[in-house]
Amino acid sequence: MTTNSETEKLTLRLWRQVYQTSTLFKKCQDQIFEEHGLTTEQFALLVSIEYLGEPVRITDIARWLERSTNSISMIVDRMVKAGLLRRVRDRGDRRTVNTFITSKGKNALKPAARASWEVIQKIMSSLSYEDKGALFGLLGTLKYDILGYLNPGLDVEEIKRKESKPAGDVKKWLDTYALPSTPQAKRQGGKKAKTTIR
Amino acid sequence: MTTNSETEKLTLRLWRQVYQTSTLFKKCQDQIFEEHGLTTEQFALLVSIEYLGEPVRITDIARWLERSTNSISMIVDRMVKAGLLRRVRDRGDRRTVNTFITSKGKNALKPAARASWEVIQKIMSSLSYEDKGALFGLLGTLKYDILGYLNPGLDVEEIKRKESKPAGDVKKWLDTYALPSTPQAKRQGGKKAKTTIR
Repeated sequence: MTTNSETEKLTLRLWRQVYQTSTLFKKCQDQIFEEHGLTTEQFALLVSIEYLGEPVRITDIARWLERSTNSISMIVDRMVKAGLLRRVRDRGDRRTVNTFITSKGKNALKPAARASWEVIQKIMSSLSYEDKGALFGLLGTLKYDILGYLNPGLDVEEIKRKESKPAGDVKKWLDTYALPSTPQAKRQGGKKAKTTIR
Repeated sequence: MTTNSETEKLTLRLWRQVYQTSTLFKKCQDQIFEEHGLTTEQFALLVSIEYLGEPVRITDIARWLERSTNSISMIVDRMVKAGLLRRVRDRGDRRTVNTFITSKGKNALKPAARASWEVIQKIMSSLSYEDKGALFGLLGTLKYDILGYLNPGLDVEEIKRKESKPAGDVKKWLDTYALPSTPQAKRQGGKKAKTTIR
């Protein structure tokens, strides 16, 4: 039995926890990618194009990254100038502009992706498989509620359905970037997996 | 029984979930405070001073907000210029500068805090008390692991111990800002306020 006041205290403490975790998460990402000459935004954009599969439209990237089309457009502009991306008008529909990663972009993405993957695994190693699943689900609830709050007309249920589909591209991404560089993590992950009951 | 590959997929999906939730969380906060003429940073700073209790030092604010002293200093500078804060040199230790909220700052904080509290409660209403507790704990694990990664020499255990103490000030904050806007909670809070021991 919990009182109103207890619920309120926990709600406020949780909000602060989300704030602090977000801030640290951002700091952590910035640090990783800065070491590889990319901003976190640029990295996220490269990953999203990989994840969604080329050719990709600005609107799709924006949706995947939960950003406005306008802000993604500006980042893409800068990345085109930096030689990391190129834009090609769609042959079928001339109004559509597709975005591709250049070879320079691919060369920047690869080491940054590997380094980030090592950090991600290290940081998340305290969470068991079950913990990760639970955190994924709870953050999902929060995410969809915020999404619904920010976009009153949006069909959040439809987005949930879409996102719940098996993410085959996650595997593709891991095969491409993650595994080759982490023989240790691989072995350790194997050991842990056998005994993981927390 | 989980395979390596499943663990890796979940780890990557979870990282993306944290990224997306953080982004939406930030967007949500920005929107709330913009309506009240404050940036999210300014609001967080005002709240942290309230939470920590005046007089407060820049270093304490920085630690509470997981930011660098330098960046907090710059935000304080702008807020002093905007009349939201004032700085006073400590009488006991002249090297220490204490920061206080002005009456203008208090007047800005109050409606923004109330509005944000309503949004927070609304957004978090899908999570049960148990869910909130679980999410708080799991984010805590992640937060401390990131903190340890970013600061290899830091005594994370010590910080955990400090943060696990009953947060009396959360209650104080709720009594001051949150309750008046939720009539149901108000009655309860009112009763409690009489017995507040800090």
